[in-house]
Amino acid sequence: MKLATLKNNRRDGRVVLVDRDLRNAVAVTDVGSTLQELLDNWASVEATLKQRYEALNRGELQGAEKFDPAQAAAPLPRAYQWCDGSAYLSHAELVRKARNAEMPAFLYQDPLMYQGGSDSFIGARDDIEVADEAWGIDLEAEIAVITDDVPMGVSRERAREHIKLVTIVNDVSLRNLMPHELSKGFGFFHSKPSTAFAPVAVTPDELAPYWDGAKLSLPLISRVNGLELGRPNGGADLDFDFPTLIAHAARTRRLIAGTIIGSGTVSNRDPGVGSSCLQERRMIEKIDSGEMKTPFLAFGDRVEIDMTNPEGRSIFGAIDQRVVRYVPSA
Amino acid sequence: MKLATLKNNRRDGRVVLVDRDLRNAVAVTDVGSTLQELLDNWASVEATLKQRYEALNRGELQGAEKFDPAQAAAPLPRAYQWCDGSAYLSHAELVRKARNAEMPAFLYQDPLMYQGGSDSFIGARDDIEVADEAWGIDLEAEIAVITDDVPMGVSRERAREHIKLVTIVNDVSLRNLMPHELSKGFGFFHSKPSTAFAPVAVTPDELAPYWDGAKLSLPLISRVNGLELGRPNGGADLDFDFPTLIAHAARTRRLIAGTIIGSGTVSNRDPGVGSSCLQERRMIEKIDSGEMKTPFLAFGDRVEIDMTNPEGRSIFGAIDQRVVRYVPSA
Repeated sequence: MKLATLKNNRRDGRVVLVDRDLRNAVAVTDVGSTLQELLDNWASVEATLKQRYEALNRGELQGAEKFDPAQAAAPLPRAYQWCDGSAYLSHAELVRKARNAEMPAFLYQDPLMYQGGSDSFIGARDDIEVADEAWGIDLEAEIAVITDDVPMGVSRERAREHIKLVTIVNDVSLRNLMPHELSKGFGFFHSKPSTAFAPVAVTPDELAPYWDGAKLSLPLISRVNGLELGRPNGGADLDFDFPTLIAHAARTRRLIAGTIIGSGTVSNRDPGVGSSCLQERRMIEKIDSGEMKTPFLAFGDRVEIDMTNPEGRSIFGAIDQRVVRYVPSA
Repeated sequence: MKLATLKNNRRDGRVVLVDRDLRNAVAVTDVGSTLQELLDNWASVEATLKQRYEALNRGELQGAEKFDPAQAAAPLPRAYQWCDGSAYLSHAELVRKARNAEMPAFLYQDPLMYQGGSDSFIGARDDIEVADEAWGIDLEAEIAVITDDVPMGVSRERAREHIKLVTIVNDVSLRNLMPHELSKGFGFFHSKPSTAFAPVAVTPDELAPYWDGAKLSLPLISRVNGLELGRPNGGADLDFDFPTLIAHAARTRRLIAGTIIGSGTVSNRDPGVGSSCLQERRMIEKIDSGEMKTPFLAFGDRVEIDMTNPEGRSIFGAIDQRVVRYVPSA
């Protein structure tokens, strides 16, 4: 199944089923009005949703409308939890290598994960609003899963069954605010403004054969101003898969339905596939030539993130955003 | 006004108005069924709620029921955001002094704040469930405010008007998991399990003359197994007041209605008032005698946190919890 949230005059928008080709959508008002509501009751609504989805794909469903990704909010416009991992250690290795530092051994056993802000996600076509270009605006192309209720202390084996939806994410980062925040020791805060989500979230069964229950083995394509930044494969060089990340997140507390778990910047060890964020390209430049040449994003820049199947069709719809200057009201 | 959320069979419970003396409560179903819903529409519901509240206090409201704090969930059982500051620097100073470290000067200008998990708060009488006593279970008695929608880049001056509710909190901490998490640089995660909230959240007007729009000047009393741990005053030695913390939180992104901003452990420089967490008492012991004597919490221990007016009446209702062993299901 594919699900999206269309903007309306309500904070949580209205949830719709979207067909496989992202052409048509249909409301499921009698089943639930928001995606959070569906996730709250997933076990009891899933079968009905599946029937509707199949009928929609066969063109048999009354009340279908054209799906316009520009009208999509984030699938969960406000969520109760966003936990973002750093599951591709080749990214962390490059960061360390660029500053001639050693990778601490424990990072290979114990995932990095930060608690992200989840109250104000932005849609796939929404502007990235930042007050100051000097903050070092960067994209981060990631894969994320959305869970139902996960008990505290869940095992990696049992964590797998709690993955209900998969999507892709632009975890916007303000790089130049990070060193100070990291030196304070309390984690990211200002350096992580609102995260953007693809128009559509997709159930794992829909992603076969590229989803194996733990990771999604397709290239994640990022472009800046139309030029490809990278296409690393989500299934390659993943040091911590999603069940591992979920078990990590639930070690000392339960996770409530609608929790979103991110992979961190997708990164492969093959330098030929490029990067999912500008920071990583800059690190590679520094290692190769001693100098970081690629600038961070400027106002007016365009960021696209997409994942297609081998036939070239977008799975989640594309993230396609502009960076704009935010001017606070008086 | 005083507002509470009573547990029912729904995830967000049902919101009630509670009278000044915490004796009677009344549903406001026609205005809103959950506290989040009220906060989403605060400007349009506030006047009606105030009328009902005054009638309830005069004993004139039909349909009032006895208020039982044991039935209270957290005012927001699941929230979209929990940002916890560290506004009383005397706490940080003691931590540094105990390890003979200097306080970095920037900490006096730039608040510490971490993004906390907000998806599964617990009620004032709910057990603190922890799998392992060796994790170093501690209470942290704090004051917190709940905001409406706050624009990105809000000034400290304008932040004040966004404070809609005030309450007290037990920000449970797992001290022995912190050093490793802090060394990873991504902030607290495992070391911050579900936070507990007082039964009642209170509008600022109700707190006069102890609330000045920026801080709450009353002692916050903590007890462990019936023995007083501390009673520092929320209005003393506050290095960053709530408008400052809100402006800090909103520097690079907006905050959505229902955002909770915590003060961090309330701590005064007068050692005679004691502490709001065991960690601080242990630091003082180390400074005084070279040895931390007070243990962290054990299974079966009782934690109480309360704030009373000068007549000795509880304002928010007491937090009164037991620490219990959590056994994961297979």
